[in-house]
Amino acid sequence: MLDVHRASVGDEFCVGKAGGNIGIGKVVQLSQSVLEMEVQLNQQPPPPLPLTLALALPRPKILRRVIRSVCALGVKQIILLNSVRVEKSYWQSPVLCADALREELILGLEQARDTMLPEVLPRPLFKPFVEDELPALINGTLRFVAHPTAATVCPRDIKNAATLAVGPEGGFIPFEVDKLIHCGFTPIQLGSRILNVETAVPALISRLY
Amino acid sequence: MLDVHRASVGDEFCVGKAGGNIGIGKVVQLSQSVLEMEVQLNQQPPPPLPLTLALALPRPKILRRVIRSVCALGVKQIILLNSVRVEKSYWQSPVLCADALREELILGLEQARDTMLPEVLPRPLFKPFVEDELPALINGTLRFVAHPTAATVCPRDIKNAATLAVGPEGGFIPFEVDKLIHCGFTPIQLGSRILNVETAVPALISRLY
Repeated sequence: MLDVHRASVGDEFCVGKAGGNIGIGKVVQLSQSVLEMEVQLNQQPPPPLPLTLALALPRPKILRRVIRSVCALGVKQIILLNSVRVEKSYWQSPVLCADALREELILGLEQARDTMLPEVLPRPLFKPFVEDELPALINGTLRFVAHPTAATVCPRDIKNAATLAVGPEGGFIPFEVDKLIHCGFTPIQLGSRILNVETAVPALISRLY
Repeated sequence: MLDVHRASVGDEFCVGKAGGNIGIGKVVQLSQSVLEMEVQLNQQPPPPLPLTLALALPRPKILRRVIRSVCALGVKQIILLNSVRVEKSYWQSPVLCADALREELILGLEQARDTMLPEVLPRPLFKPFVEDELPALINGTLRFVAHPTAATVCPRDIKNAATLAVGPEGGFIPFEVDKLIHCGFTPIQLGSRILNVETAVPALISRLY
């Protein structure tokens, strides 16, 4: 409040209660050690997207950006998938600790003035996850897997709940795509341009909703 | 080729000629000093987007990422705008040198397998640019300015040529929005979530086309 916002008594800020409403906070007392605000939490946070994102684990620096970005977009369930093309070392990254993930999620929520923390599910084993756990997680949702050579163009404005799988740089291998197709996923594409995950994910989500 | 692709004689790669066709290159000779390929350039690069992006200059690190991202998406004209909320120091960044911009653009083109270099127009003076130069640049295009409080939702799948203006963190000031409206821009929004420029730009472009 002092360093970034350079706040003074009387200033008003957007505030939100984790898991609750958003509103306005008025600074009534401020020093190096104390902040007191009069808070009115009279608005609901923005509505969530009815989307589960199943993302092949990107390298840690990219993961942090994508987590913030999809959290700001309103995704509330993020599955981090393995793939043959995911480097094994990525699974050892400290970014995957619950506290580090939470920090990125909160940055995403702050950006979007949201208060509802998404759930992040790291799943380092592709086959058992897709066979045993995924079907129950995605029950009742439309299912799409982004795949540059797909015959179907990414649909627009679907309104329904959906699960979107996005592969690693270089894409899911054919075995992985087949497994997802077996779980009811339709391969979709955004055109002949290959996009990196940071660009592809907001582009896909914004096309779907 | 040696360090990243670990290429050997006989390997095939996607290649493209700057400003020309794309195709396949087969390595016929490779050493520390010489690469020789048999090249077939028999495909056109992916089609461009008929979009001019007028972007309030973001901080240099973000600018680099956004340039790569929109270049990969197929934007061929990028105007870098000033705004009261753009920090003056950003205009001194070495990223704005033609060579540095070209480097980011080429990374974007490589990502998307494109060969047609976009044009980047840095315009450090808002008012003279918008009054004197912008009208001719955007003649014949639809015009949108992203503005979180806009009454109109970002349209989908517009197919026509368009110009999209995107403000700085915190948005264009009312004077700037008014100036753009006077030039025929319609304020549009993507919902109640405020997105950072890296997420907002791909989301807007993917919604428009």
